[in-house]
Amino acid sequence: MSTKRIAGPEIERLIQLLAKVPGLGPRSARRAALHLIKKKEQLLSPLAAAMNEAVDKVRICSTCGNVDTADPCMVCTDPRRDGATIIVVEDVSDLWALERSTAMNARYHVLGGTLSPLDGVGPDDLTIGKLVDRVAAGGVTEVILAVNATVEGQTTAHYVTDRLAGLSVRVTRLAHGVPVGGELDYLDEGTIAAALKSRTAF
Amino acid sequence: MSTKRIAGPEIERLIQLLAKVPGLGPRSARRAALHLIKKKEQLLSPLAAAMNEAVDKVRICSTCGNVDTADPCMVCTDPRRDGATIIVVEDVSDLWALERSTAMNARYHVLGGTLSPLDGVGPDDLTIGKLVDRVAAGGVTEVILAVNATVEGQTTAHYVTDRLAGLSVRVTRLAHGVPVGGELDYLDEGTIAAALKSRTAF
Repeated sequence: MSTKRIAGPEIERLIQLLAKVPGLGPRSARRAALHLIKKKEQLLSPLAAAMNEAVDKVRICSTCGNVDTADPCMVCTDPRRDGATIIVVEDVSDLWALERSTAMNARYHVLGGTLSPLDGVGPDDLTIGKLVDRVAAGGVTEVILAVNATVEGQTTAHYVTDRLAGLSVRVTRLAHGVPVGGELDYLDEGTIAAALKSRTAF
Repeated sequence: MSTKRIAGPEIERLIQLLAKVPGLGPRSARRAALHLIKKKEQLLSPLAAAMNEAVDKVRICSTCGNVDTADPCMVCTDPRRDGATIIVVEDVSDLWALERSTAMNARYHVLGGTLSPLDGVGPDDLTIGKLVDRVAAGGVTEVILAVNATVEGQTTAHYVTDRLAGLSVRVTRLAHGVPVGGELDYLDEGTIAAALKSRTAF
């Protein structure tokens, strides 16, 4: 697809847009486009329809920041969930990851990122104020900070803890330690030190 | 996205369909879906439109087997191309790869695969008959067999050569040798032997 045109602009446009999808690059986008075109009825057409439907229906939950076709979202309106516990995450993908673990049955709060002064991300760019409002409204007994174990994540966790300080709510964070199935030989020193420090009775 | 539902079925359907795109798996499809939803206006909406347009307009060229929005395709109707040379390829992706090299300015013929008796692919499942017809119609002086250097590709090349035997056309194939930029140390013995055998004056 260089100087000489070998196909209509519609195909090149499809390739260009596919190349912007995370996980695909310019080369794999070309392969993907060709596969989609070959499976027009079975894959390309349903995928286009599913995308159109997502464009029309998907919105951000105004309570927790989850993405869903309903607002408030399914998680916020699910009566079987424990409304007294809010798990704070950086991104919707983290919410999904926690749900896959099926370990908790709580509600969530998506911050929308981490504090990062260098990138110009301050507290007002995240949904921290909304979280404080949710907790201040009452009924919440525990806030679990499930942010990433990165410098930015931990900085954000500290800031959120400060903001929640005046409210009668227990603030906890995820445990550090050896990943299940993990081998000590491949772990960094920080994780091993944290796992030793938080050792439990056998 | 396990037993408990955390989002509407529209989002899960989008993820399921994205997971069928080559280059994406179940995990990266989830990440891709989230990214697309977040970039609704900039990416999801244009991509859905581009796919719909491809569904409507893209077709297989009835002459050469290329995919395009026109039939005959741009390659077949381009008056600046040398119609006397036909490059035979297995798949449209090979046609695109050859065009990227910009080495030739010929027309193409897409076989649609290789002969593979074990998989039940016989000569009638490929477009070999059509190629013979194109050559028999006259005006073609050379057929370049640009099939893959695999057992199936070479078997198919031999069969195509046999079928073209009665016609006054020169049948050639791609040279074997050291890839440009390739290191001998990493090449297989077959390639080195072929490169030695086809050595040229320096």
